[in-house]
Amino acid sequence: MTRYAAAALTGFAAALFEAGGMEPSKAATVAEVLVEGDLMGHDTHGLALLPPYLDGLASGDMLGQGEPEVLSGTPVVETWDGRKLPGPWLVRQAGDLASARAATFGLAAVSIRRCHHIGCLAAYLPRVVERGQVMQVWSSDPATASVAPWGGTRRVITPNPLAAGWPGKDGPVMIDVSMSITTNGMTARRRGEGTQFPFDALLDADGVPTADPNAFFTDPAGTLLPLGGMAAGHKGFGLGLLVEALTSGLSGQGRAENPG
Amino acid sequence: MTRYAAAALTGFAAALFEAGGMEPSKAATVAEVLVEGDLMGHDTHGLALLPPYLDGLASGDMLGQGEPEVLSGTPVVETWDGRKLPGPWLVRQAGDLASARAATFGLAAVSIRRCHHIGCLAAYLPRVVERGQVMQVWSSDPATASVAPWGGTRRVITPNPLAAGWPGKDGPVMIDVSMSITTNGMTARRRGEGTQFPFDALLDADGVPTADPNAFFTDPAGTLLPLGGMAAGHKGFGLGLLVEALTSGLSGQGRAENPG
Repeated sequence: MTRYAAAALTGFAAALFEAGGMEPSKAATVAEVLVEGDLMGHDTHGLALLPPYLDGLASGDMLGQGEPEVLSGTPVVETWDGRKLPGPWLVRQAGDLASARAATFGLAAVSIRRCHHIGCLAAYLPRVVERGQVMQVWSSDPATASVAPWGGTRRVITPNPLAAGWPGKDGPVMIDVSMSITTNGMTARRRGEGTQFPFDALLDADGVPTADPNAFFTDPAGTLLPLGGMAAGHKGFGLGLLVEALTSGLSGQGRAENPG
Repeated sequence: MTRYAAAALTGFAAALFEAGGMEPSKAATVAEVLVEGDLMGHDTHGLALLPPYLDGLASGDMLGQGEPEVLSGTPVVETWDGRKLPGPWLVRQAGDLASARAATFGLAAVSIRRCHHIGCLAAYLPRVVERGQVMQVWSSDPATASVAPWGGTRRVITPNPLAAGWPGKDGPVMIDVSMSITTNGMTARRRGEGTQFPFDALLDADGVPTADPNAFFTDPAGTLLPLGGMAAGHKGFGLGLLVEALTSGLSGQGRAENPG
C-alpha cells in the first residue's frame, strides 16, 4: 500500500477544491477536515468524500464562495442559513464562534440550516477541546432517510450522529457515534466488499432483522436498525429524534420543507 | 387493584415528607414529581421511591431544609452544590432558572453536584416544554456503578440517563432513556419477580451475555450492557461517558472524589 504524508494530501485536496471553484481559505479548511477524518480512522468520511464534494461543486449543489446568512441570534446563540456552503468550513466557523462566546458565557451554540455535508464529526473536536472546552457536533440530513421508527419499516430519519469531546488528563476524550447500529456509508462499503455484518444491523423491507447489507438496496428498501437493535431500539430511535429536533428542526429546515 | 386519585396521592406523599422533616414547599414539589413519574408509567421511579426518600431524610442522607449553594456562574449558566437537598426540588428550581434565562439568551444550563436522587427525568419536562422551549435533563450517580466499558467486566459508570422534551404539533415530544440496555431498578424488579429479560441485557461476572437478572447480584458481580449491546455497545458506552462528563464531571463531584 502506498503511503502519503498527511500535509501533502491536504495540499493536494485543497488544490483540487480550488480548481473546482472553492475560495482558497475554504478549500484549505475543507481539505484539513477531510484529512483529519482519515487520520482519525473514519475513512468513510475522509478523502473518500473528495470526489462527491467536487461533484457537488461542479453541479452547483455545493456553493464554493460566500458567507452564511445570520437568520437570528442572541449574544449566546445564532441560527445560520448555510446556503449549501462547504460543511467543514461552516462548522469550523461555527465552532470558533461558539467557542469564543462560551469562554464568556459558559455555553453557546450555532444552528445551521442548509449546511452541505460535514464529513467526520470528530474532526472538529480537537481544535476546541485543546482550549479546555467541551464541544458537541450534532448532525442530520432532512433530504434523505434510512432509519425507521422502532417497530416500523419505513425510512423516516437519518443515522443522526453526534460527536463530543472534552479535556482529559491524558488528552482529549472524544466520541463520534450515530443513533443507528451502522451507517449508510458502512452499509454501502460492505455491499461493495460482499461481506455481511457480524450482527443484525438492518431490517429488510418486511421488518425482518438481517446482517445482509443488500437488504438496504432492495425495492422496497430495508432500513438501518436504530442503536439498541431489536432489544432496545426505542432508545436509539428516541435519541435519533432528539438529534433531528435539535438540528433540522431547530434550524428551521426540516423534512416538512422537503429540502432537495 | 385499588385505584387512587393522583391529587390524593400527591397530598399523602407531601404529608409524609413533611412529617419526615422536609420543608412544605419542597415536600409539595417532591410529591408532585414522584406522582408525575407514576402517571407517565415510569413506576420504578414514582411513589416506589417514597420509602427510600423517607429513609434518606431519617438517616440524614437527604437534607430536608435549606438552599443550594451557587458555586459559580455567568448570566447563562450556574453550578450549584445541591447539599443533598431533595433532587426533584433542586431540578425543578434549576429548570425554572434555566428556562427564564434561555428565554433571554436562547440557551442556558445549571449543573448540580451533590444533588439527591431525582426520580423520573421525564417528569420535569412538561412544565418547561409547555412554554415552547426544549428541555434536557442529564443525570449520573458517581457514588455507585453498574455499567462496564464495552469489552470490560468491571463496573465503572451508572446507566446515565438523559431525558429531553420539545414542543410538537400535537403536544410535547418526550424521551427518557438510559445509556445502558436496562436499568438497576428494572433488573432488581425482574429478580424479585423471578423473570428473565427477553434479550441479553447484562454480562455476567465473566463477561458472558445473559438475560438473567441474578447475574447482577453475584459476587463478583455482573454488569448492565451499554446501549447497543454486543453489536454496538461502544456507542452506548461512549454516550454514557458523555453524560458522565457533563454531569458528575462538569459539576465537580465525580468518581475521583469517591463521594458517599
